Amino acid sequence: MTPAGDLLTGDLLIGAARVPATEGTMKALNPATGKVIEPEFAFGGTAEADRAVRLADEAFDSYSHTGLAERAAFLELIADKLEAVRNELAERASLETGLPAAQFEGETLRTAANFRKFATVVRQGRFLQAALDPARPDRQPTPRMDHRLQKVALGPVAIFGASNFPISYSVAGGDTASALAAGCPVILKAHNAHPGAAEIQGRVIQQAVAEAGLHEGVFSLIRGAGNEIGEALVDHPLVRAVTFTGSEGGGMALYRRAQQRPEPIPVFTEMTSVNPTFVLPAALAARGAEIGAGLAQRAQYNVGQACLKPAVLLAVEGPGFDELRDAARAEVEKTAARTMLTPGIHDAYIGNVRRMQERDATRIGAGPAPLRAGEGQSLLYEVTGEQLLAEPALREEVFGPAVLLVRLAGLDQLHEAARAFRGQLSATLHADPSDHTAAAELLPVLERRTGRIVINNFSMPQEVSFASVHTGPFPATSDPRFTSVGMTAIERFLRPVTYQNFPDDLLPEPLREANPLHLWRLVDGELTRR
Amino acid sequence: MTPAGDLLTGDLLIGAARVPATEGTMKALNPATGKVIEPEFAFGGTAEADRAVRLADEAFDSYSHTGLAERAAFLELIADKLEAVRNELAERASLETGLPAAQFEGETLRTAANFRKFATVVRQGRFLQAALDPARPDRQPTPRMDHRLQKVALGPVAIFGASNFPISYSVAGGDTASALAAGCPVILKAHNAHPGAAEIQGRVIQQAVAEAGLHEGVFSLIRGAGNEIGEALVDHPLVRAVTFTGSEGGGMALYRRAQQRPEPIPVFTEMTSVNPTFVLPAALAARGAEIGAGLAQRAQYNVGQACLKPAVLLAVEGPGFDELRDAARAEVEKTAARTMLTPGIHDAYIGNVRRMQERDATRIGAGPAPLRAGEGQSLLYEVTGEQLLAEPALREEVFGPAVLLVRLAGLDQLHEAARAFRGQLSATLHADPSDHTAAAELLPVLERRTGRIVINNFSMPQEVSFASVHTGPFPATSDPRFTSVGMTAIERFLRPVTYQNFPDDLLPEPLREANPLHLWRLVDGELTRR
Repeated sequence: MTPAGDLLTGDLLIGAARVPATEGTMKALNPATGKVIEPEFAFGGTAEADRAVRLADEAFDSYSHTGLAERAAFLELIADKLEAVRNELAERASLETGLPAAQFEGETLRTAANFRKFATVVRQGRFLQAALDPARPDRQPTPRMDHRLQKVALGPVAIFGASNFPISYSVAGGDTASALAAGCPVILKAHNAHPGAAEIQGRVIQQAVAEAGLHEGVFSLIRGAGNEIGEALVDHPLVRAVTFTGSEGGGMALYRRAQQRPEPIPVFTEMTSVNPTFVLPAALAARGAEIGAGLAQRAQYNVGQACLKPAVLLAVEGPGFDELRDAARAEVEKTAARTMLTPGIHDAYIGNVRRMQERDATRIGAGPAPLRAGEGQSLLYEVTGEQLLAEPALREEVFGPAVLLVRLAGLDQLHEAARAFRGQLSATLHADPSDHTAAAELLPVLERRTGRIVINNFSMPQEVSFASVHTGPFPATSDPRFTSVGMTAIERFLRPVTYQNFPDDLLPEPLREANPLHLWRLVDGELTRR
Repeated sequence: MTPAGDLLTGDLLIGAARVPATEGTMKALNPATGKVIEPEFAFGGTAEADRAVRLADEAFDSYSHTGLAERAAFLELIADKLEAVRNELAERASLETGLPAAQFEGETLRTAANFRKFATVVRQGRFLQAALDPARPDRQPTPRMDHRLQKVALGPVAIFGASNFPISYSVAGGDTASALAAGCPVILKAHNAHPGAAEIQGRVIQQAVAEAGLHEGVFSLIRGAGNEIGEALVDHPLVRAVTFTGSEGGGMALYRRAQQRPEPIPVFTEMTSVNPTFVLPAALAARGAEIGAGLAQRAQYNVGQACLKPAVLLAVEGPGFDELRDAARAEVEKTAARTMLTPGIHDAYIGNVRRMQERDATRIGAGPAPLRAGEGQSLLYEVTGEQLLAEPALREEVFGPAVLLVRLAGLDQLHEAARAFRGQLSATLHADPSDHTAAAELLPVLERRTGRIVINNFSMPQEVSFASVHTGPFPATSDPRFTSVGMTAIERFLRPVTYQNFPDDLLPEPLREANPLHLWRLVDGELTRR
């Protein structure tokens, strides 16, 4: 294992090259101490974006046609290397975020595991969605020619790293893993909140590309002072897709920009969600305290800086409501203020909390006051259902450790409140068996507004599996047809191609008559491994 | 069977209602005679668009939750009813287009067959992509909760009918069939080139909705004088997706408009393609005449008004080239001029042909001169590879019965020409066994630029099956990840939802533990019907 000092040069990573600053430099800030950390990190500009994209385009033909086994081995090599640097990476991420190093060791291991899962997806080859409709020369009134379909990679993908999870939603995060799994070269625009953690991950992938003998353009990491370098990526004619995790404002600016290109491209942005939690009467009466405490505890995770933070808790006034409220308050009151990711995020938190108060939300609980600048105080607010319905702003995300409790007048108002929310990543329902009739009525309302519904549990932590997603109707994401987390995240970067009347030797291997890769294929509409 | 006269009232079909004109009326034009045809057809405006969309939204919850068997039966009922009106529909479509009625009987039967194929897709239920990741309470370091995923319908879909295929790409076309199969209500904006054919189809679907006992909002057909009614659909906050088949200008206007909504929505436009055909040397020497004649013949289908028209034929000068050229010319010269779909399309054809000539394309063949106004003359032009590379306009679609032959200087120039094309619906390669090395080099270049590659045949007619697609990189379509034709067209209208930690009785039927619908499901990453 290499100590972090050796890994950090502050250079941009463009293909196999370390590229020094062309547009100034920055240093990372330790938000816990307010002090800057060495070394200096290079800023690049449009020229560096262009160089990275051109290399990615040069790499595309060879990388997108790597065999499934070769590509899977490459993903596993990245996983190995991530695990090998987990101590250095966790330590640096902790310095740059003020969050505990132990959290980042776990995050690194989960991120490595994600690459292994995508290696399995690649080996299984189901993502190719291979389909064969054999020739039927005798069909009436016209013969059918042989048609064979597989998915192919879209092209170079520009990925914008998130601020809040400096590993799992950043350089080596799920966007990168799924794009590389699909056969797409990646140009990573690193977030400036954690340049060192970004470089350690970038170097790992750069080394894996070299050791796997792949074209150097398969991966680049760039960084810029302002929006210019990211805009250059989104505008670049050779970029074929964009992903982004962050604010609604930032995400929509990139989305709309990409749609104004002469040739628009898919942009998947994951943006904002309050993950409303609805507690039905029997569950409230039976488990009010447990639900209130569990929710408030999860809302504090990562100092509330999580897309899945359960931010709004809704229950009908009645038996169990006071217990729910008191337990949530107790949890909030015992949670110490902790350093937020950046001074800017902290300032936004203060501003959003002030706006909640201006909308007559009542502060009913608060953790110990911050000891140092930049710390986020845990807070619990309460409003009535009427207030929530009258004030759209109360239904919007407050990024940080605040929770809003909504005291509803009845089940009708609960339904009305559910319908008032915009699109969400998740919604949660607490329901005991005697609540099931009410739950069944609420489910279609929630289904229409979210990508994930949880019953009698919490939507955190996020699972990464075949049946898990991280998506939802706008503004949770810009396209609810795709997910950024889970094994189907790969579908964002694939498109179908049909090969018609091909001689066997010219067909791609997955579509050859003998099925040499032993794939599941759809043959004349029936699934088979023949 | 009802005679067409009874079927045509000229009203808009909004839900179960016949709605008379609110913004004037129109009559259809018989392009073969230049005379208008009865009856008058109603124009609506934004109010009618709003009414249709609100009904669709009201219908959404019940229609999107219809059982698979019920939804499949509804699609088959539409198929039955289409077949029952095939004579009237073919006759009216012929009157409105100047194309032979026999062609439209076939088109009606294929369109009905398409509904039956989607009924099968719905019954098979694979489009739900059901996936189950069972709970693992003992997993380390954290337990896994039960996760179950299925696809759900996106919401009301606005569909813009095409001008050129008044049945298969119009009211009862593949967009409507796949959206209804997905569980999405449809608001159909009819094309004014064939209002009678549109109404007959719309009435069929309206009747099927009523007979199936579905909410009337599942289908509406509206029509307007200008762009206003279509823009109202694209802007409507309750519309969740848009499809369009037509020109690049029209498609991109709708696409960009939808992306500027406060809440952007998916828009799938199928726009423009020249479907380049490359003839490699051995195939040229062996079969030049056969290829030239076959291509030129298909280019005349539907008076060249087809998205899959093979418009550009490229071959390296050498043995067989003259035979290719002469055979294509002979075919063009024997094809009589025929009435084009509308006077506007005819005028555009004349203009585009003139522009080819201004770019020094040499006219080397022409069919008999038109006898009547509005007829499109079959034409064959020739340019050198150098000209094609220098003039982007020569690589653009000319909608009508014209073919461009490109005389290439060598295989290097053939590669260069292949790389110069924008995105295409299809590309075709003629290659004999001794051409396979050259073909293998060309395939990645074509794969990157098209949704379908055909070897040693022609890309028309379009097959509708599990392995067939009608898509391609921009500007062939606005999103090459989806197709508008073939069984996977349904994917445009679906999004994933994960149900986490659900008690069995609250789960959607396709995800219940006992697999009551006997679906193929992905259980812990393995396909099974258990």
